[in-house]
Amino acid sequence: MINAHARAVFSPEGPFKLTAIERRDLQPHDVLIEIKFAGICHSDIHTARGEWGPVQYPLVPGHEIAGIVAKVGSQVTKHAVGDRVGVGCMVDSCGECVNCHKGEEQYCLSGNTGTYGAIDRYGQYTQGGYSTHIVVSEDFVVRIPDGIELDAAAPLLCAGITTYSPLRHWGVGPGKKVAVVGLGGLGHMAVKLAHAMGAEVTVLSQSLKKKEDGLKLGADHYYATSDPGTFKELAGSFDLIVNTVSAKIDISAFLSLLTLDGTLVNVGAPAEPLSVNVFALIGHRRSFAGSMIGGIRETQEMLDFCAEHHIAPEIEVISAKQIDEAWERVLASDVRYRFVIDISTMENE
Amino acid sequence: MINAHARAVFSPEGPFKLTAIERRDLQPHDVLIEIKFAGICHSDIHTARGEWGPVQYPLVPGHEIAGIVAKVGSQVTKHAVGDRVGVGCMVDSCGECVNCHKGEEQYCLSGNTGTYGAIDRYGQYTQGGYSTHIVVSEDFVVRIPDGIELDAAAPLLCAGITTYSPLRHWGVGPGKKVAVVGLGGLGHMAVKLAHAMGAEVTVLSQSLKKKEDGLKLGADHYYATSDPGTFKELAGSFDLIVNTVSAKIDISAFLSLLTLDGTLVNVGAPAEPLSVNVFALIGHRRSFAGSMIGGIRETQEMLDFCAEHHIAPEIEVISAKQIDEAWERVLASDVRYRFVIDISTMENE
Repeated sequence: MINAHARAVFSPEGPFKLTAIERRDLQPHDVLIEIKFAGICHSDIHTARGEWGPVQYPLVPGHEIAGIVAKVGSQVTKHAVGDRVGVGCMVDSCGECVNCHKGEEQYCLSGNTGTYGAIDRYGQYTQGGYSTHIVVSEDFVVRIPDGIELDAAAPLLCAGITTYSPLRHWGVGPGKKVAVVGLGGLGHMAVKLAHAMGAEVTVLSQSLKKKEDGLKLGADHYYATSDPGTFKELAGSFDLIVNTVSAKIDISAFLSLLTLDGTLVNVGAPAEPLSVNVFALIGHRRSFAGSMIGGIRETQEMLDFCAEHHIAPEIEVISAKQIDEAWERVLASDVRYRFVIDISTMENE
Repeated sequence: MINAHARAVFSPEGPFKLTAIERRDLQPHDVLIEIKFAGICHSDIHTARGEWGPVQYPLVPGHEIAGIVAKVGSQVTKHAVGDRVGVGCMVDSCGECVNCHKGEEQYCLSGNTGTYGAIDRYGQYTQGGYSTHIVVSEDFVVRIPDGIELDAAAPLLCAGITTYSPLRHWGVGPGKKVAVVGLGGLGHMAVKLAHAMGAEVTVLSQSLKKKEDGLKLGADHYYATSDPGTFKELAGSFDLIVNTVSAKIDISAFLSLLTLDGTLVNVGAPAEPLSVNVFALIGHRRSFAGSMIGGIRETQEMLDFCAEHHIAPEIEVISAKQIDEAWERVLASDVRYRFVIDISTMENE
């Protein structure tokens, strides 16, 4: 086994503690990554606190991982020692089902293997990126282009691909009007990406507090959803609405902002069901959809797109001992726009 | 004005009474139709009883109209006296908005003009097809092909197009798996149409009571949704689910039956909002959509398709004085599968 250090929670309440974990010995197609940076995603918190179902403790969260290849298995061809690489929300899938064959491993019919909190094909409980090292099958490791710094690359592996994939799937480009609901970690990436794809981008946020930011990030328009006038003014406007908010919102009100054949896609996953007025769908053949991260091929495409268009998330780099505090700030929406853990500080007290 | 006879309700409670109504004098582009048959649609009942909003009485329902052109306005070019024609759920639209220009007049941004219970461009309250005559702009009149009997043609103008349009829009054809929820007026047309388009068709009905019928209509499979085993067995199966049920159903359970990128489209419109589990959408990039009738061009295409494929609804022809009784039977789901009023009996007591 390979020894690593990590920050883990030992109960739903936390706090994080420094701990030693083991990674499996390299299998022929495995890559050992020395992790340099790990992003903090809101879903780390949902999962660790048991809000999305029971979890086993200790748990090491983290599925926005950027690092350097330290060692490769005997049959690895895709990556070499010294390569700058990333790992996102999944580390394996069956590889045999129709969805895996399509390159949509995230929708693997047997369920993809989550980067943390899942049982992998070796029967081991997966532990995530708040850690010094990780061992991952080469097929689930992507290359980080030279143009992207490793700290900024980390959030692209979840927040980036989660927003890139639906924007591509629903054909965003010049001439399309896109709205982004919520300007957080996912939302700010959705704005940057949709803008780079050539769309006209509108942010729909609860208030106008982040308006200046939103416009700087690439939004053409910025509206407060707390103002009922917003819903009147923008009725029937958008081809695509990307809802990044995990809290329960009035979906039917947002559906009314779609044009004929428009789609509202949820990338946030509220624990409670949402109430949908069917008339809001029928009236203009609208769709309410969901999308989850992206496949490995598409994740690589997203990274290449970001390098080409000089897109990087706005980040605040923290040390490992600041994770608890950072989580509290995520819950208070007090982050612009993603915390990234500097893994070199892992053993600092 | 042109005199006509009609059956109208004078209050939400009914009953129907024979009454005299007036139709406008022919404008240059108008067609006077002598109505031969009018179908009874569940939405006639919802509307007349005020369940979809307030209505003005007396109200003459009916938006599944088949008849013969009796007279044409001075500039009519599309239809001639003696032509077999139909009128569906709308009799006008603005003709100028982006949706009208696309031939999707049902989604007119100013709102299409309903065949009954709407205010038309002349400021008159529209009255529907439970009537001896109607005057309609030639653009909203379709040709009934010779291969279709007039009585069977009537239900195609709503039940037919309402199911044909989403089947076409979501690309149903050979190799596609389609489920139809509910085997009523709309459902039985969806089965016939999807089968004729070459899809593998499954009926999802509360019980197996109509199983024999369903298979005869063209379904390949028939399942009872009252059996929880159905949802296990069919998980992830369908490319498209057409939900024809207007009552509140467990949408999230039905969403779980969709494959990757599958769509559940509601053509029934429940008055109450439906509760949607967003995880059911996100897990396989599924969509929950709505669709409303079809455009005029597509309605004509549907009629031609039905003639070519020898498709006609299963109907029970009734006399005008049986409408009240027929409505009660519709509410009790005691109809296989559409009542059609023989308008020649309009004045019979």
